[in-house]
Amino acid sequence: MSTALIPYEKLRSFTESIFLKMGCPSDQAANAAKALLSADLRGIDSHGVARLSGYVRLWEAGRINANPTIRILHQTPSTAVVDGDNGLGLVVAQEAMRIAIEKARQVGTGWVSVQNSNHFGIAGHYAMMALEHDMIGLAMTNASPLVAPTFSADKMLGTNPIAVAAPAGMQPPFVADLATTTAANGKLEILQRKDQDTPTGWVQDKEGRPSTDAHILKKGGALLPLGSDREHGSHKGYALGAVVDLFSGLLSGANYAPWVPPFPAYVPMPSKQPGKGIGHFLGAMRIDAFRTAEEFKASMDDWIGGFRAASSINGQDNVLVPGDPERIAQEQRSLQGIPLEEIVLSDLHSLADRFGLSL
Amino acid sequence: MSTALIPYEKLRSFTESIFLKMGCPSDQAANAAKALLSADLRGIDSHGVARLSGYVRLWEAGRINANPTIRILHQTPSTAVVDGDNGLGLVVAQEAMRIAIEKARQVGTGWVSVQNSNHFGIAGHYAMMALEHDMIGLAMTNASPLVAPTFSADKMLGTNPIAVAAPAGMQPPFVADLATTTAANGKLEILQRKDQDTPTGWVQDKEGRPSTDAHILKKGGALLPLGSDREHGSHKGYALGAVVDLFSGLLSGANYAPWVPPFPAYVPMPSKQPGKGIGHFLGAMRIDAFRTAEEFKASMDDWIGGFRAASSINGQDNVLVPGDPERIAQEQRSLQGIPLEEIVLSDLHSLADRFGLSL
Repeated sequence: MSTALIPYEKLRSFTESIFLKMGCPSDQAANAAKALLSADLRGIDSHGVARLSGYVRLWEAGRINANPTIRILHQTPSTAVVDGDNGLGLVVAQEAMRIAIEKARQVGTGWVSVQNSNHFGIAGHYAMMALEHDMIGLAMTNASPLVAPTFSADKMLGTNPIAVAAPAGMQPPFVADLATTTAANGKLEILQRKDQDTPTGWVQDKEGRPSTDAHILKKGGALLPLGSDREHGSHKGYALGAVVDLFSGLLSGANYAPWVPPFPAYVPMPSKQPGKGIGHFLGAMRIDAFRTAEEFKASMDDWIGGFRAASSINGQDNVLVPGDPERIAQEQRSLQGIPLEEIVLSDLHSLADRFGLSL
Repeated sequence: MSTALIPYEKLRSFTESIFLKMGCPSDQAANAAKALLSADLRGIDSHGVARLSGYVRLWEAGRINANPTIRILHQTPSTAVVDGDNGLGLVVAQEAMRIAIEKARQVGTGWVSVQNSNHFGIAGHYAMMALEHDMIGLAMTNASPLVAPTFSADKMLGTNPIAVAAPAGMQPPFVADLATTTAANGKLEILQRKDQDTPTGWVQDKEGRPSTDAHILKKGGALLPLGSDREHGSHKGYALGAVVDLFSGLLSGANYAPWVPPFPAYVPMPSKQPGKGIGHFLGAMRIDAFRTAEEFKASMDDWIGGFRAASSINGQDNVLVPGDPERIAQEQRSLQGIPLEEIVLSDLHSLADRFGLSL
């Protein structure tokens, strides 16, 4: 596969133009582009511009409202339920996180559960919004069902990610951002394009038998929860994915479990819809609601330093701290550009033609 | 191994008597016994009375204060940092959870980070305290270092569990309670007593090489994070264990990472102590801070029903929901008694002799 390097700024302004053409208000188009591109910057190629045409198709199918009225349905001093008015998750989740941060400013923490939203890219982007406020950020979302619980053949949960970001002092921030599955769907897609098998423990076939077929999802198979099988703790990955669904879907009144709307616009909506749209959960905790930010950050530096100094194996220079690989990617890609596979680039060219733009 | 069945009430009152002999105030002795025995009731034998002599030895070594003055060091409407005054974690965590619940009553959610505490048994017990208040409960703790991060040979984290409990309506509550490792240390101990090997992916040796030796921890080896290896997502289990450490240890001012005090009283304290004692993190979210408890519980029933109705494999009657195995154990053991291995029973008889009690 050949790849091209596209400067970040070019890709960002192109994406913003697409969102403007869809009818997004200008501030929302700018914020959505930044959120989507944060995936490409951070090296999570599956969740960035590679999905832009997917968002456009959802909008064309009338499944995304480009100009939503996002509003609070119910709130307490530390919580809110937000109705995303079927807007882009990229927009809705940012607004919800802003509300969480404002509540944290007032009463120490803020927790916002969101209904009636759509896919939002990478969870880490929203968790990281807390960092500049000396807060810990937390973000989760439910997603289209691709994952079978332990001992089941049915796809009942999405890859339901959890992201947590915490500021440090001299060290870069701690950023954990993980799908609650053994492998994210994006990793399967990479193997599909190379026509390679998966390692064992990533997927199962439609009967629930172990499989290494990277195309197995199209054949009724499923991704496996983090842990892969019961003996290696898949019931724990399943439980974590379930918690994400409870916080994002059930607390908000969004859809949940296998009834979360699909990302591909050609997949029909589930016949049952117990709630509205997709659900997210955003949280912010002010550090100084616990101890001074200075003390906490000094401890974080000590913590991170301890892990970096631990003895490394497998030829690694040092033990990695959550967020390291993504930060390194961001540093490189900010300077050198975003590598896009040919198939993604041609997808963007089609979008440019469709909207009378140039890339 | 032969086992004896001891009635729950007998074991509970014996445990309470031991705590009284240690000098615990009567209400704390009763609450601590209930918390410790909840592990035995729920089938998590490694964390219950099997550890009672361990708690006594810590007290004998002067490492546990049987009559602590638990106090709030700092607070906001939705948060608090609690100093456990080096008390039993079984006591301190309950008090901290009560504070979290009271804050949730006031402002929607409550979040309490605890320093200067000790091991607290099973996390699920504290998360479940929220249920009767129509709240979602959350509990975490850091613990003595037994776990190597991905690509490291050093033990840097504890098995750092996460528990989340949410009420349902007609269905029993959802209770996830999981160590962020592939296998809990208690499972290793069972294999040690049977002199059996572990499955692959549970432990590594002191050089960081794969091992199946159930005794490997005593030889410098380590437990592996949930996911087992990089290819199967061990960096995710490592990140989750790290988040537990941040919330429990760093937000509170407790010790963290490899400097968390050891459970066995014969293991010397780490030379470096960046904080005080062990740290916990307790949270409570009032359901009706988001939507009515009735609506949420109806959705929970629908969610749970959906999972139970999913197609099951591997000869299982139905797909399990987090909390099912523990609830089934509790129903059986409440009626039939707690099965104790001979080694645990003789341990309890020694304690009875030591304190002039009868079992």
